[in-house]
Amino acid sequence: MTRVGVTGEFGLIARLASHIPPYADDVLEGIGDDVAVVRLGGGRILLLTCDIQVAGVHFLTDRITPYQLGHRVAAINLSDIGAKGGRPRHFLISLGLPADTEAEYLEALYDGLRAECQPFGVDVVGGNVSRLATLAIDAFLVGETEEAFLVTRAGARAGDLVLVTGDLGASRAGLALVLEPALQASVPEAAASAVLAAHLTPHPLVAEGQIIARTGVATAMLDVSDGLAADLGHICDQSRVGVRLHEALIPVSAAAAVVAAARDFTAHADAERGVGRAWPAGNDDPALGWALGGGEDFQLCFTIRPGGLETVRAALRARGCVATVIGEILPEGEGRWLRRRDGSDQPLAAGGWDHFGAG
Amino acid sequence: MTRVGVTGEFGLIARLASHIPPYADDVLEGIGDDVAVVRLGGGRILLLTCDIQVAGVHFLTDRITPYQLGHRVAAINLSDIGAKGGRPRHFLISLGLPADTEAEYLEALYDGLRAECQPFGVDVVGGNVSRLATLAIDAFLVGETEEAFLVTRAGARAGDLVLVTGDLGASRAGLALVLEPALQASVPEAAASAVLAAHLTPHPLVAEGQIIARTGVATAMLDVSDGLAADLGHICDQSRVGVRLHEALIPVSAAAAVVAAARDFTAHADAERGVGRAWPAGNDDPALGWALGGGEDFQLCFTIRPGGLETVRAALRARGCVATVIGEILPEGEGRWLRRRDGSDQPLAAGGWDHFGAG
Repeated sequence: MTRVGVTGEFGLIARLASHIPPYADDVLEGIGDDVAVVRLGGGRILLLTCDIQVAGVHFLTDRITPYQLGHRVAAINLSDIGAKGGRPRHFLISLGLPADTEAEYLEALYDGLRAECQPFGVDVVGGNVSRLATLAIDAFLVGETEEAFLVTRAGARAGDLVLVTGDLGASRAGLALVLEPALQASVPEAAASAVLAAHLTPHPLVAEGQIIARTGVATAMLDVSDGLAADLGHICDQSRVGVRLHEALIPVSAAAAVVAAARDFTAHADAERGVGRAWPAGNDDPALGWALGGGEDFQLCFTIRPGGLETVRAALRARGCVATVIGEILPEGEGRWLRRRDGSDQPLAAGGWDHFGAG
Repeated sequence: MTRVGVTGEFGLIARLASHIPPYADDVLEGIGDDVAVVRLGGGRILLLTCDIQVAGVHFLTDRITPYQLGHRVAAINLSDIGAKGGRPRHFLISLGLPADTEAEYLEALYDGLRAECQPFGVDVVGGNVSRLATLAIDAFLVGETEEAFLVTRAGARAGDLVLVTGDLGASRAGLALVLEPALQASVPEAAASAVLAAHLTPHPLVAEGQIIARTGVATAMLDVSDGLAADLGHICDQSRVGVRLHEALIPVSAAAAVVAAARDFTAHADAERGVGRAWPAGNDDPALGWALGGGEDFQLCFTIRPGGLETVRAALRARGCVATVIGEILPEGEGRWLRRRDGSDQPLAAGGWDHFGAG
């Protein structure tokens, strides 16, 4: 017998996937992607995703308001559909509730959920409530796209450029403030607000994902949820390619750098283990470690054919979104690397979040 | 502040629904139905449902094998899509796992899930794993149908006949054996096996639901999950009608009657409270109480125009399925009744399952 604490999250998923028979022809992406991709016929594509938020695991009830939590639940799922270039459409919300949960808490959660859904025209069309010892919100989101504009994780090719929108590390810096409230006293208020917002109420780049997909130059895309290095690993696994990132090009959040500078990293080795392991490069540059390994920034990481850079940048500029080139796709046999500022190449370890801490 | 233990499951759902803005035109059924119904265009309809099974709430890990549990999780959701006359298509499975969960347990669960899905051509296309203190399996199922064949809960009209497939009460009798293993010694093995199978590995009537929907004579339909009386209450609420059931016509499971006869009901008042309250009529006929209030039989309860009886029976006969007329739909103002064998009318109390035990 092997406990999931030993197989780890991704080992377990691989084992369970081996118990699923080959898919019917209409299933383009199944287990292993954050979003299942299914043909509806007539060139239409259905996108299916789910994400659970559990008190004490994904959030702390005394550090996030229910309204913020509703916003966060919606955003995490909306981001997954956006990263496929899709239009999010319909939520089902499954609530696991201790009997002493207050109805007013859940009403505020629904208000936050609704406010985040409204600009995207997304309806909450159903769900489920059950008793559960721990508060948990499991959200299922259905979206749509067209096969002609579908971008998966599997299309990157050697020579493609790797880009990321916005900047990285702010969500992980916000988590540091959530877990270590004392730290907040030594961080300027503007930086603290920025990183807390990035962590508690992230903004899903749905329109931006659609824009990128419709340029026709993107070959693979996902949202930065597990951590840039781990997420790029998913693209490399599924596209069967290698990658080289350039440390000097990674857009590290300025607010995250301010928080990192205020924090004594040597004192937090223990806390670090519980919330995702710091990426190795973080040893000498903590903010870079957060940018590479922190996750939950919900920026879009995507690859494009080398000739497509101006096309995609011009399309995103109209939306006020900046995308930065951070590396290039290599042939699979050439490996996965981070080129440091000193010109040396360091293996790109995933170092992202694993629910069962294995690996 | 009002705790969900006070609002109850259905009170909570009503409060949350009031926080959801009016739906877009493509949403035909939203919160309040077990299945959300959404227009896809071109007469196509998307059906969305979810159901969570939590250890200690919905099942006991030492009384159901993981293979059976996988079967049960699949069946409960397949039944919901079948009760809309739909074709189930794609599952997402969200697992909440204590860290000591064994991978082999989950593999067996997936094997049961797959075995139950295979005859229906349903694929498990994705999901999620998360740490959770309690084992929980949250399943999300997408199905399809055509608008021309859609049967909801809202179409019943005064004068319609009420029918139910198969017989009722076996699942609740199986639950009695699960909760009171000592009872098994006094029940003949054939009856014990039948009711345990009904409870642990129910059979979803997907083909039968499609057949009923395609006759064109059905005006409302659902699966018996909360309990016949409670489920008929949902049809009455959403169709704005009343109903009269006839006690003498209710098809009580013979195996359930055998288990009920072997059980001392006066000794189990406490146990009863935890697992759904016995329906009032059960005071003098426990097996009837289980048939009316037990739930989870996953038979189809539906209403038809009075001239359609032969049409629907002939269509079901070809499938080996028997449907029994158990009552008639009344105008809303005439109320909801059970006509007892002595000719008296007793109010049809719901008495079904409520997750937070209110009401």
